[in-house]
Amino acid sequence: MPVKGKKGMPEPTLRRLTHYLHLLTHLRKKGITGISSPKIALELNLDATQVKKDIQYTEIIGRPKTGFDVDELIDSIKLCLDWNTHQDAFLVGVGNLGKAMLSYDFYYRYGLNIVSGFDIDEQLIGTYMHNIEILNVDTLVDLAGKLNVEIGVITCPASSAQAAADLLVAGGIKGIWNFAPRNLKVPDDVIVENAQFSQSLALLTRRLSEKRGTAD
Amino acid sequence: MPVKGKKGMPEPTLRRLTHYLHLLTHLRKKGITGISSPKIALELNLDATQVKKDIQYTEIIGRPKTGFDVDELIDSIKLCLDWNTHQDAFLVGVGNLGKAMLSYDFYYRYGLNIVSGFDIDEQLIGTYMHNIEILNVDTLVDLAGKLNVEIGVITCPASSAQAAADLLVAGGIKGIWNFAPRNLKVPDDVIVENAQFSQSLALLTRRLSEKRGTAD
Repeated sequence: MPVKGKKGMPEPTLRRLTHYLHLLTHLRKKGITGISSPKIALELNLDATQVKKDIQYTEIIGRPKTGFDVDELIDSIKLCLDWNTHQDAFLVGVGNLGKAMLSYDFYYRYGLNIVSGFDIDEQLIGTYMHNIEILNVDTLVDLAGKLNVEIGVITCPASSAQAAADLLVAGGIKGIWNFAPRNLKVPDDVIVENAQFSQSLALLTRRLSEKRGTAD
Repeated sequence: MPVKGKKGMPEPTLRRLTHYLHLLTHLRKKGITGISSPKIALELNLDATQVKKDIQYTEIIGRPKTGFDVDELIDSIKLCLDWNTHQDAFLVGVGNLGKAMLSYDFYYRYGLNIVSGFDIDEQLIGTYMHNIEILNVDTLVDLAGKLNVEIGVITCPASSAQAAADLLVAGGIKGIWNFAPRNLKVPDDVIVENAQFSQSLALLTRRLSEKRGTAD
């Protein structure tokens, strides 16, 4: 099925679309059925023109005066992010973060279905966490190919992250969601999205220090 | 102590600085002592001019031909991000993600010292996780003021995120690192950095779908 929205959406737009989605989901729970883009901007303390432009990327059509139907806008954003269908994923590294990720309902929220966890720890292999089986990492390449899994989540330590990436690539994975604080080398046709905590922490601590007026 | 680097560093630069830091830390472990910006660009598959510009923001001075001293560049980036001194933080919501965060060595890596976790669960209150005590959320406002804590980490569910933010703000916290999928309302002088998994997942799944050629 073709994915909705214009190609080449800028990164800030994609990030903001997730904020709109969080807001809209919250509004829907409260029984609100319609919203305009200036109202979204006001709620999220963003520029109204910016919000309007972001939403135009999704190619949804608003109604004059009333704005957007909340359900329609949620669907429209999800279609853009390819969250409307489910996508299978493997997770490598079932340490503290890996365990937390397996407990998180990515499937319900974003369509990401973590089908198996992989580790080298004999104590973990064969166990289940939140109904997801933990398998020996030796079986990853074979299984990824058989199940046609396209997304790999790396939650292992930095020291084994490249080895995990190599296995995922050998298994035919097309996209890696990398939480390990290590830059990965992968073939050109594999997409890596670095999701380390350090990125957002850098934004927070830098802004705090600039605000304290201690930055030059 | 004044923080290094020019004011108003762009968000993409700050994000990339963390990638450089991961690479440099890795190189240092391997015994490498010097690196040039074109080499960093090559290693990370980035544009060399971009890397050069990012590094100039840190105001480090390179040496002709040899480039940068790895240790100095690491220090220079850490100074920019305010990761060279330690900063105390409170964490609210000791569920799966909260537990994983408490186990993570933010202090060693980024100078962030999580001094206490807070929850409403009687079973958790009074216990220790990775040497960090879990306290009753009722004590947060008082303690934050007494300890002069400036950073709050929100890892509770979306439904209680705003209440957690309100407590942190009442306790005088200046910056919130928000992992809950909910947009927070805070006074203008409080900085919120949204670190939800959904942001990076959106980038990954959108890029994958564009690459599959299924986007319009």
